[in-house]
Amino acid sequence: MTAELIDGTAVARLVREDVAKGVAELVAAGGTPPGLATVLIGDDPASEVYVRNKRRLCVTAGMADLHRHLPGDVDQDTAAALVDELAADPAVSGILLQLPTPAHLDSEALLARIPAAKDVDGLTVANAGLLAQGRPGLRPCTPSGVIELLDRYDVPLSGVEAVVVGRSVLVGKPMAQLLLERNATVTICHSRTRDLAEVCRRADVLVVAAGIPGLVGADGVKPGATVIDVGIHRGEDGLHGDVDTAAVAEVAGRITPVPGGVGPMTIAMLLANTLTAAIAQQGLGG
Amino acid sequence: MTAELIDGTAVARLVREDVAKGVAELVAAGGTPPGLATVLIGDDPASEVYVRNKRRLCVTAGMADLHRHLPGDVDQDTAAALVDELAADPAVSGILLQLPTPAHLDSEALLARIPAAKDVDGLTVANAGLLAQGRPGLRPCTPSGVIELLDRYDVPLSGVEAVVVGRSVLVGKPMAQLLLERNATVTICHSRTRDLAEVCRRADVLVVAAGIPGLVGADGVKPGATVIDVGIHRGEDGLHGDVDTAAVAEVAGRITPVPGGVGPMTIAMLLANTLTAAIAQQGLGG
Repeated sequence: MTAELIDGTAVARLVREDVAKGVAELVAAGGTPPGLATVLIGDDPASEVYVRNKRRLCVTAGMADLHRHLPGDVDQDTAAALVDELAADPAVSGILLQLPTPAHLDSEALLARIPAAKDVDGLTVANAGLLAQGRPGLRPCTPSGVIELLDRYDVPLSGVEAVVVGRSVLVGKPMAQLLLERNATVTICHSRTRDLAEVCRRADVLVVAAGIPGLVGADGVKPGATVIDVGIHRGEDGLHGDVDTAAVAEVAGRITPVPGGVGPMTIAMLLANTLTAAIAQQGLGG
Repeated sequence: MTAELIDGTAVARLVREDVAKGVAELVAAGGTPPGLATVLIGDDPASEVYVRNKRRLCVTAGMADLHRHLPGDVDQDTAAALVDELAADPAVSGILLQLPTPAHLDSEALLARIPAAKDVDGLTVANAGLLAQGRPGLRPCTPSGVIELLDRYDVPLSGVEAVVVGRSVLVGKPMAQLLLERNATVTICHSRTRDLAEVCRRADVLVVAAGIPGLVGADGVKPGATVIDVGIHRGEDGLHGDVDTAAVAEVAGRITPVPGGVGPMTIAMLLANTLTAAIAQQGLGG
């Protein structure tokens, strides 16, 4: 192992501390604490864990936990009415609809009801358009968490070759836009890419978000590159990412571990987005 | 000269003929002819020429020319009221606000009033978001014209290396998204790219939309590559693109001339978008 480990757990804690400070400043300036409305529909155990963690860290940061729970057999109109109620409620700074929703619901139609200004997950079409056009807006949490990690480790982005593996709406596509915004020369790879390892070897900064365990090995990494592993997969011997971490760590300059890399950043950026949304809504400056 | 010339004038004519057939079919199916509302504010001579060409070809394709002209000293509210009127008018299938508008007007605020379904230029935040998320929507005319050229010349896109030079909201960024949608491995270059020629030489399909005359020379082209030149610049000896056409034509497999390459495609795709919008609005199928 020669690569420096990028400690996402530590960076996420720093981000959450900054958010807590920002909340305190907002309140000191006469504002009200940001309110995060997590919406959980049904009783999926994994979703319950995710939502519980978001609520706990939201409270720790000094924000109001405005969680709402709907039964798994709720109909579309009732779920839509709840989103509309939260959209209209001035105490709600941000709305997070926990995905996936039960199969009988149209989650895209529910997401479309979230106003762009309260879309703290950054997943609506409106915020995707703002990002695509380089305008201010709320950015998706996981890719903005990757940028935060790179910044806190002083990884240069302007003019470097960045390669993103994966083109999902949640991670790959917005990741490419954020790297482009930071003036990297950006390549997006995917399942149809002919020689993935060859393209990945061009990268000074390589972000792997393909959802395939161990997809990128040492032959896909330029010596000294920074490798960000967004994947997370549960195997018999624990959690693994999309990168063969042990082998790649012998070649890369810096690498995120799994777990403890990108994972903790997602909730931290959700809280940062909620603060940003509250400041914009309350008109008290940043 | 060894490269095949890509004849944009001929392809644009074919596209316009297809649009005219589609208009006739729509009317035969009980629909009304699509209506294109070009909006020209002021008397800029170049803008007047562009708008006149759009109106003429719109009529040739069997569509209704619903042109509107406002004086150059119009105030923002009056211009906004016109856009709102066109947005509400069922005879108007598409609205095209000719840019640039006079400096005292906020053109972005005017564009934002155009409903996504009538945004035949594909420039609104809403349509940018739909493209970024890979959902159906109206696409910007110039990059979709490039895709049309590539398709009509049977240039394979799936799995190839595509390089886009330039990251404008009008061309470069949506171009990259459209190539990605067609399963190319896509790289976006720009002014901060370290070794532009080296990156361009990777391309099987190279699209240059940087706005810099002669930016890409023969050293930036892989033998046999398809080179699409989106630039157009008036020099003392005529029109030139962003590519050194004479030199690159000795290396490339196919190349668009300037003029007569991408240029004629933009209006053709505007007409295609107007037909698409009308069909969607009239609910008569495609």
